[in-house]
Amino acid sequence: MSARPAKLPPEEVEQRASELEGWTVRDGKLHCELEFPTFAEAFGFMASAAIFAQELDHHPDWSNSYNKVVIDLSSHDVKGISERDFDLAGRMNALAAARSPRA
Amino acid sequence: MSARPAKLPPEEVEQRASELEGWTVRDGKLHCELEFPTFAEAFGFMASAAIFAQELDHHPDWSNSYNKVVIDLSSHDVKGISERDFDLAGRMNALAAARSPRA
Repeated sequence: MSARPAKLPPEEVEQRASELEGWTVRDGKLHCELEFPTFAEAFGFMASAAIFAQELDHHPDWSNSYNKVVIDLSSHDVKGISERDFDLAGRMNALAAARSPRA
Repeated sequence: MSARPAKLPPEEVEQRASELEGWTVRDGKLHCELEFPTFAEAFGFMASAAIFAQELDHHPDWSNSYNKVVIDLSSHDVKGISERDFDLAGRMNALAAARSPRA
């Protein structure tokens, strides 16, 4: 296996999160709250994101309540936020944009 | 539209929840925690359950972290637990059993 990306310094995490639309740093994780028109669209987003997550071998902590999806990303193995979290967040943003969430 | 099922009395909810494997009453909701072998199986369960939820027009509050799924069911419109929650819980149990979760 290739080496896993390392934990990023907090300053870099804050800077890059501020450049990523819809994401903040909360409790040491990349955090995002999305709202879609319907449950079907919210869960459709999750299903697409789940496939990407599996491909990246990096999985979100997330919750869903009707049309809302709340996501927290972190890299448990490095006890922080790594490049993988930004990769997954970027892919999720592309998926969400394609579905025009309202949040 | 047909009338929505009414809120069930707390005693009936407790009794019926005790007969439903894996479910408890927590904070006024039907609560269940499932653990699957992998993320793919956990999310596969959610995808199947999402389709049933949509069919029932009754949607869970739920979260997923890798191979774990935590579910809370309640009927917001009647501010309590109704027949719909037991319907969805029963269908979720059937789906989970088919996937042999470890919890």
